[in-house]
Amino acid sequence: MLRRIGVESHLVMSRAAEITLGYESEMTADQVRALADHAHSVDNIAAPPASGSFRTLGMIVAPCSIRTMSEIASGVTTSLLTRAADVTLKERRRLVLMVRETPLHAGHLRTMLNLTEMGAVIAPPVPGFYARPQSLDDLVEHTAGRALDLFGLDCGTLRRWGESGGA
Amino acid sequence: MLRRIGVESHLVMSRAAEITLGYESEMTADQVRALADHAHSVDNIAAPPASGSFRTLGMIVAPCSIRTMSEIASGVTTSLLTRAADVTLKERRRLVLMVRETPLHAGHLRTMLNLTEMGAVIAPPVPGFYARPQSLDDLVEHTAGRALDLFGLDCGTLRRWGESGGA
Amino acid sequence: MLRRIGVESHLVMSRAAEITLGYESEMTADQVRALADHAHSVDNIAAPPASGSFRTLGMIVAPCSIRTMSEIASGVTTSLLTRAADVTLKERRRLVLMVRETPLHAGHLRTMLNLTEMGAVIAPPVPGFYARPQSLDDLVEHTAGRALDLFGLDCGTLRRWGESGGA
Amino acid sequence: MLRRIGVESHLVMSRAAEITLGYESEMTADQVRALADHAHSVDNIAAPPASGSFRTLGMIVAPCSIRTMSEIASGVTTSLLTRAADVTLKERRRLVLMVRETPLHAGHLRTMLNLTEMGAVIAPPVPGFYARPQSLDDLVEHTAGRALDLFGLDCGTLRRWGESGGA
Amino acid sequence: MLRRIGVESHLVMSRAAEITLGYESEMTADQVRALADHAHSVDNIAAPPASGSFRTLGMIVAPCSIRTMSEIASGVTTSLLTRAADVTLKERRRLVLMVRETPLHAGHLRTMLNLTEMGAVIAPPVPGFYARPQSLDDLVEHTAGRALDLFGLDCGTLRRWGESGGA
Amino acid sequence: MLRRIGVESHLVMSRAAEITLGYESEMTADQVRALADHAHSVDNIAAPPASGSFRTLGMIVAPCSIRTMSEIASGVTTSLLTRAADVTLKERRRLVLMVRETPLHAGHLRTMLNLTEMGAVIAPPVPGFYARPQSLDDLVEHTAGRALDLFGLDCGTLRRWGESGGA
Amino acid sequence: MLRRIGVESHLVMSRAAEITLGYESEMTADQVRALADHAHSVDNIAAPPASGSFRTLGMIVAPCSIRTMSEIASGVTTSLLTRAADVTLKERRRLVLMVRETPLHAGHLRTMLNLTEMGAVIAPPVPGFYARPQSLDDLVEHTAGRALDLFGLDCGTLRRWGESGGA
Amino acid sequence: MLRRIGVESHLVMSRAAEITLGYESEMTADQVRALADHAHSVDNIAAPPASGSFRTLGMIVAPCSIRTMSEIASGVTTSLLTRAADVTLKERRRLVLMVRETPLHAGHLRTMLNLTEMGAVIAPPVPGFYARPQSLDDLVEHTAGRALDLFGLDCGTLRRWGESGGA
Amino acid sequence: MLRRIGVESHLVMSRAAEITLGYESEMTADQVRALADHAHSVDNIAAPPASGSFRTLGMIVAPCSIRTMSEIASGVTTSLLTRAADVTLKERRRLVLMVRETPLHAGHLRTMLNLTEMGAVIAPPVPGFYARPQSLDDLVEHTAGRALDLFGLDCGTLRRWGESGGA
Amino acid sequence: MLRRIGVESHLVMSRAAEITLGYESEMTADQVRALADHAHSVDNIAAPPASGSFRTLGMIVAPCSIRTMSEIASGVTTSLLTRAADVTLKERRRLVLMVRETPLHAGHLRTMLNLTEMGAVIAPPVPGFYARPQSLDDLVEHTAGRALDLFGLDCGTLRRWGESGGA
Amino acid sequence: MLRRIGVESHLVMSRAAEITLGYESEMTADQVRALADHAHSVDNIAAPPASGSFRTLGMIVAPCSIRTMSEIASGVTTSLLTRAADVTLKERRRLVLMVRETPLHAGHLRTMLNLTEMGAVIAPPVPGFYARPQSLDDLVEHTAGRALDLFGLDCGTLRRWGESGGA
Amino acid sequence: MLRRIGVESHLVMSRAAEITLGYESEMTADQVRALADHAHSVDNIAAPPASGSFRTLGMIVAPCSIRTMSEIASGVTTSLLTRAADVTLKERRRLVLMVRETPLHAGHLRTMLNLTEMGAVIAPPVPGFYARPQSLDDLVEHTAGRALDLFGLDCGTLRRWGESGGA
Repeated sequence: MLRRIGVESHLVMSRAAEITLGYESEMTADQVRALADHAHSVDNIAAPPASGSFRTLGMIVAPCSIRTMSEIASGVTTSLLTRAADVTLKERRRLVLMVRETPLHAGHLRTMLNLTEMGAVIAPPVPGFYARPQSLDDLVEHTAGRALDLFGLDCGTLRRWGESGGA
Repeated sequence: MLRRIGVESHLVMSRAAEITLGYESEMTADQVRALADHAHSVDNIAAPPASGSFRTLGMIVAPCSIRTMSEIASGVTTSLLTRAADVTLKERRRLVLMVRETPLHAGHLRTMLNLTEMGAVIAPPVPGFYARPQSLDDLVEHTAGRALDLFGLDCGTLRRWGESGGA
Repeated sequence: MLRRIGVESHLVMSRAAEITLGYESEMTADQVRALADHAHSVDNIAAPPASGSFRTLGMIVAPCSIRTMSEIASGVTTSLLTRAADVTLKERRRLVLMVRETPLHAGHLRTMLNLTEMGAVIAPPVPGFYARPQSLDDLVEHTAGRALDLFGLDCGTLRRWGESGGA
Repeated sequence: MLRRIGVESHLVMSRAAEITLGYESEMTADQVRALADHAHSVDNIAAPPASGSFRTLGMIVAPCSIRTMSEIASGVTTSLLTRAADVTLKERRRLVLMVRETPLHAGHLRTMLNLTEMGAVIAPPVPGFYARPQSLDDLVEHTAGRALDLFGLDCGTLRRWGESGGA
Repeated sequence: MLRRIGVESHLVMSRAAEITLGYESEMTADQVRALADHAHSVDNIAAPPASGSFRTLGMIVAPCSIRTMSEIASGVTTSLLTRAADVTLKERRRLVLMVRETPLHAGHLRTMLNLTEMGAVIAPPVPGFYARPQSLDDLVEHTAGRALDLFGLDCGTLRRWGESGGA
Repeated sequence: MLRRIGVESHLVMSRAAEITLGYESEMTADQVRALADHAHSVDNIAAPPASGSFRTLGMIVAPCSIRTMSEIASGVTTSLLTRAADVTLKERRRLVLMVRETPLHAGHLRTMLNLTEMGAVIAPPVPGFYARPQSLDDLVEHTAGRALDLFGLDCGTLRRWGESGGA
Repeated sequence: MLRRIGVESHLVMSRAAEITLGYESEMTADQVRALADHAHSVDNIAAPPASGSFRTLGMIVAPCSIRTMSEIASGVTTSLLTRAADVTLKERRRLVLMVRETPLHAGHLRTMLNLTEMGAVIAPPVPGFYARPQSLDDLVEHTAGRALDLFGLDCGTLRRWGESGGA
Repeated sequence: MLRRIGVESHLVMSRAAEITLGYESEMTADQVRALADHAHSVDNIAAPPASGSFRTLGMIVAPCSIRTMSEIASGVTTSLLTRAADVTLKERRRLVLMVRETPLHAGHLRTMLNLTEMGAVIAPPVPGFYARPQSLDDLVEHTAGRALDLFGLDCGTLRRWGESGGA
Repeated sequence: MLRRIGVESHLVMSRAAEITLGYESEMTADQVRALADHAHSVDNIAAPPASGSFRTLGMIVAPCSIRTMSEIASGVTTSLLTRAADVTLKERRRLVLMVRETPLHAGHLRTMLNLTEMGAVIAPPVPGFYARPQSLDDLVEHTAGRALDLFGLDCGTLRRWGESGGA
Repeated sequence: MLRRIGVESHLVMSRAAEITLGYESEMTADQVRALADHAHSVDNIAAPPASGSFRTLGMIVAPCSIRTMSEIASGVTTSLLTRAADVTLKERRRLVLMVRETPLHAGHLRTMLNLTEMGAVIAPPVPGFYARPQSLDDLVEHTAGRALDLFGLDCGTLRRWGESGGA
Repeated sequence: MLRRIGVESHLVMSRAAEITLGYESEMTADQVRALADHAHSVDNIAAPPASGSFRTLGMIVAPCSIRTMSEIASGVTTSLLTRAADVTLKERRRLVLMVRETPLHAGHLRTMLNLTEMGAVIAPPVPGFYARPQSLDDLVEHTAGRALDLFGLDCGTLRRWGESGGA
Repeated sequence: MLRRIGVESHLVMSRAAEITLGYESEMTADQVRALADHAHSVDNIAAPPASGSFRTLGMIVAPCSIRTMSEIASGVTTSLLTRAADVTLKERRRLVLMVRETPLHAGHLRTMLNLTEMGAVIAPPVPGFYARPQSLDDLVEHTAGRALDLFGLDCGTLRRWGESGGA
């Protein structure tokens, strides 16, 4: 999607993400990496995204596990992924976390609230049925489009409420 | 589902839910009402669920809009739906809110945290891809099954993690 | 009671109060209205009590439902009744809320605490058995007398602790 | 009531309760003690209810004075009564406090909120007029029935809202 | 004003606003509506501004009553007006609330503080006498100009401090 | 106005107020001083209003800058003006602050909330258009009349809501 | 002093106060009791000041030990003295606590802050040297006079700042 | 113990626990594992206890180090052990943490308080000397018995306070 | 122990401690008292430890019941024991509380946190198994030695971690 | 006093202190300055006490006005006096503030609590009558002696509680 | 630097800054002033930066003393410098504070946290050694470059992490 | 430095520190280790500094990364380095953290505040230019000297403010 609108992308993938990918999807980790302009090893804490002087529009973590979210909130950043998110916050750039956990307990919600107060955007990937998705792919695409919206990026594929309606 | 396991169900449907139903689904409000054992008008604040002396296992609000969630949290209960939820909390019974909003701002999260501290369970209907759903219906069924789990009810249709795996 | 001591009274009655009246008492809404010097429609948000420049001693809400209490606390004042209470608070006049709900959950109590910090007096109409009431009417009269006490008004019918005792 | 449904009862009566009983009721303290299966002296801090290893369904304090409520909330438990309540909370059993004070100030409400967050249920014995009580005894019986409801105990004498109504 | 600088405007007018307009101004509600590019009925919760996927620069609520402010802060959004404001906040767009109430009590201020923490801008329409207004119209125009400033929009009619002075 | 109702007035004028007066009004500082019964130099921290033993009805600060408001809230009272306000609060007398700043940030609002909790009344001089002011002078007079209302003083010139209407 | 201005006084003296009196003063407890219009035993929790229906101007606790202050703040009121203070607060009457402890730790200050938020006035009996006391008796008299000031009572013996000075 | 009462047990052992075991006990890690019905590798984050759909009575962590407790509280769950505890909390099942650290600093206590508010039970394994233990084994057995009590499980070996005493 | 290192000890023993001693130990209260250099009656609130001007290194409360801990935290100090602890805190000397309660509820933990913020050290007497105790006496001695460590006192009998190991 | 025990003293005197001195005492500012080993001008923000690298035992501010206390608490340090106090806190040295204000409002108490949490000691110069002072000088000397106690300094002139009594 | 990238600069220099400059640098205050496009006297509170209607990109305070930071946080703005910073915050523009104090106490950190919540960026000028500075000038230049980064301004002289590395 | 003043030093070096050392300095990790009296592997959680019974003056972490600081604050101590810091805090010994991060976001500051409340000292290594450093080495030495000051250790090489000046 980002290629279509000329934005350079950097990818960091956690080890848990690689494992989960095996359970939940048909793609391999390498196939996913190939979709990004740059892919960094999650252990390479000396990679550019770990430094505030490396300029970015911001960062999306999708999907975002409770552990990843909690590392960012607490500052206990054990990988490039969460260190980069911490840097994104301190440089006051946009950080979107698509947290995929349910139900939530008080600790989860307090962490989400803290992150929001630190400038992050908590965006659970809840399906938007008002767009009448026809398939799981529709769901995923709509969710991704809405996340890019938060950066002011428009891929052109998002069906907007009232678009064909007007006022 | 509940009929299958012999639990009596009561349904209250908000006006906004009826409108949204038209946008998002093929079913009519009456078809939905017919699935419940009892259906109460959302304006009937003298209906049984509005009183603490009427005994229930608890209550699920699905989907739960920001307005409905906020009415319960603030106590500004303008309908039978939210009055019944308030009663559920004061009688210390289980209340599950499947909040379907994204992204969330600090106000939403503070409300969710308050509700959790009041005893409610916030459960966004995020799809569980680890169960490898084949269709949107799979998604919905899995989400519903997980909500009933919180009441200790088992419909027998939920595919559980590790069920075929063991330890 | 107020007539006996020469204080002018204004009455606002919520729709829910009218309904509840039917369930719990022998009086009609009109009979109740006739007891006040002035009665205002709950929808008339342009009535005098809605403005701070209209001078009053304060306001009693009795009985006070959770919804009414919550509207005042949150500022979501959907009627003349709760708008007038909000005005009473901002003009730093006395506001007494006789909240009739039991049991109470954390949300109710937080709301009551907030209202107290905003200057309101939470006074649940708990019967004072130390006055050895002989009937339900005694209970009600005693409760009302104690509420007026908070305005420095004395109807002369309240039996006071130690009155016949001394020190 | 509890005898009727086969639940064993233990009674602890504070000295203030004995004094108040003299003022407010026709019964003597001994008559009240005789109604319980076991009665413990309020000074006997070595009695079974003072230990977590003594198993109970929970505890009701009725009526509950501000001092008793405050001892439980602060942990300054000067008698068997409040020590037993503290143990009930630490073992995560149900504790119901029928607080009989009005009006309430910020300190009272903060204490109630703290107790609720510690797991207790604050239940002021406000009369439920919707059940159209005919006498003071009706009031008291209804209040007691509602308290037992919080333990899942049903004495069969509680008139429930909508019972004769249905949906 | 917005037309002059080529920004498309959408108008939602609350029922209370229509009533107040009658009391305070010579214009009718329809005349006001005609000034906007699009006007939406306050009951039409399916209108575009109710959805996050409808892109806007943000939203001004002027004047903003305590009830409207409180609906946005609590999430109890009973109309298109406050629902649209909620959406503006969750999409992290600018929301300016010109709250016209005085004096303010602790509840009002706590609500304003919460809204500010949620990203809104509280801007009471206090007259700026340093611009030496010659009439009420000057006051109103200056106030409106300052609000647009918060969106980075400059109508060219705002007399700025030091403009003719320099440093 | 106060002379008309026989209340003795004391005036303290900050240096910033004198400067602002030059920018915003036709009156000189001496003309303003002549309107008060007593005028104290802002540097005279030994003047009567600096002591709690000097009895007053209370104090109005109008207009009240952010600096003046903040000195009172923080206790960093650098002049007679703010020291007198601090004394007014500690003696539990009425203090009204007509804060003239817009927009407000979180720090301003937190300060206002703290002051309110300390007993002060925050009253931004927002014009009350419901009184249909014909000129800027009308605005100012109405604002002053409402402030005196908070002391229970009535100058007789305030047009009250519903005054000609009644109920 | 109070006799001089015709105010009826009630005295409650704690056991610790009696002991301290022996250490610090030449007077006996009985001599102190004789100065009051009514003296109540500190154990008599059925005395008039223990009930809200007994009307008073308020209450002064002088000197006020940490234990007494803490009993009032926590609600653990073990005597008539502290029960009466709790009642004074719930009836929204003036309560002045002349706390005589130094230094203060965080717990003491938090308690003082809580009491202030509950409506009490914390007034440590710090000597006011600006009145140039000539003896310890002057100190004590001045301190007492300032406390009565908080009730709007003037004994006529208090030398006020600026009294002989004027403005 | 659990085998005796027919409850199926699952064991997860942290690496630190294995090391500590070597220091403090005669048993090997394998011997401990053999006592459980199922033992899971602490690195196997795909094991059943990591999923909410796997149903359990709850979980005991004994002994519980500060690191383990902190991982659960913060959500930074680096192993199956703490991930399973997080899941236990979100599914609202019982979680007992036998924290073995002394002394405690403010951070430890804040974490314990947060965990308690999230639903966990903090139970330091403090020896209960009132049961007059004769050996270290008695201490350990008593501690374990009390923990199972919190699940409503009774192994029959726990000597209870007053058991041989009665009331 | 303290005698061995030449530190003068003062003992205060609560009545509850005397009772508990009978249940849990072979020693009598008098035997315990004989071990201290000075023993004070718990009722003697005029004893030296009740005054800040009496200089000490600090104070250990062992074991510390919930009631004792709570009296210190709330300031409701009903005996010499807790009054002396309050004085220890206000003079900024070390206070160690060996709290022996399990499990803990939110109220207990909040009290512990407050005490820690007031300068106390919460040190539950959890056995340190890493020192491989051979008997209950070893446990008790180790616990006592660790408490003295907090005062910088070394009895020479404490086996330290790594003592025989080095780095 | 300090000279007697060989501690070097530095004096900083605020302008307000000089003025107050004139009102309350017979000494001149220069006489006071002569008592110190070093005296610094309050405007000399480059004097040694303004730097953390200048080593001291700590600092006493006596008497301490609300303004001085508030400057230290807020960090708005407008003189050498308050800058030095800020440095004392950041270097974790003892700071004693003898605050002489009465009564206190919520703002004062919140400031005192904040300062205590920052490490300062709030010590109002309340006379200690238990030492049976014979004159104002006795009061002052006793107060000063107690302040030095907080630094572990003993001038030998302080009459201690129980000194002639023992246990 | 700013000239190089065509941004107009305004300078306000505090009196303390001028003094410190003398101690720490070779430049005079006038030399510094000459580097800016506009320099305003710190006393000129009528200068353009004191008004919200004067449009700017934002403001950097470097170095920022504790006093300056605290004036902005508390609103006690005694100069043009801090008034301009307050205005920057209320207009929601970027404010960067390069606070140069170490160590920090709780009050400093609370102030920094409050400022961050008000929208400011706290950026201590800690040297970035990862850029391998060769001299003090390198340190200063790097620090300044990073500050401009927060405004999206790039002077071209900042050596960025990974710039010569890539991914 | 420490050797010069006869203090035994223990060194723990994190893996990230070793990596960073390579980027930022000419020294190898082994050269750094050789400077300490004892060096412990960061993985050896059984080393002496991990136990409270090992006595130390305290601990300095320099430089301290956000991850290290956050591990200590949250208790998620993954190495000997942070476990030792946790122990230092619980034994109430001095812990100094030289945090080297800029800018800081709300999460960082909240963590710093929490650590300060737990007893740690946050000391960013901001260069002290008032000592007119001639080189980077001067900067580093001055920073280290100031840190030792916090332990009351004086290496004799620190140039102190006013040392050559006096008062």
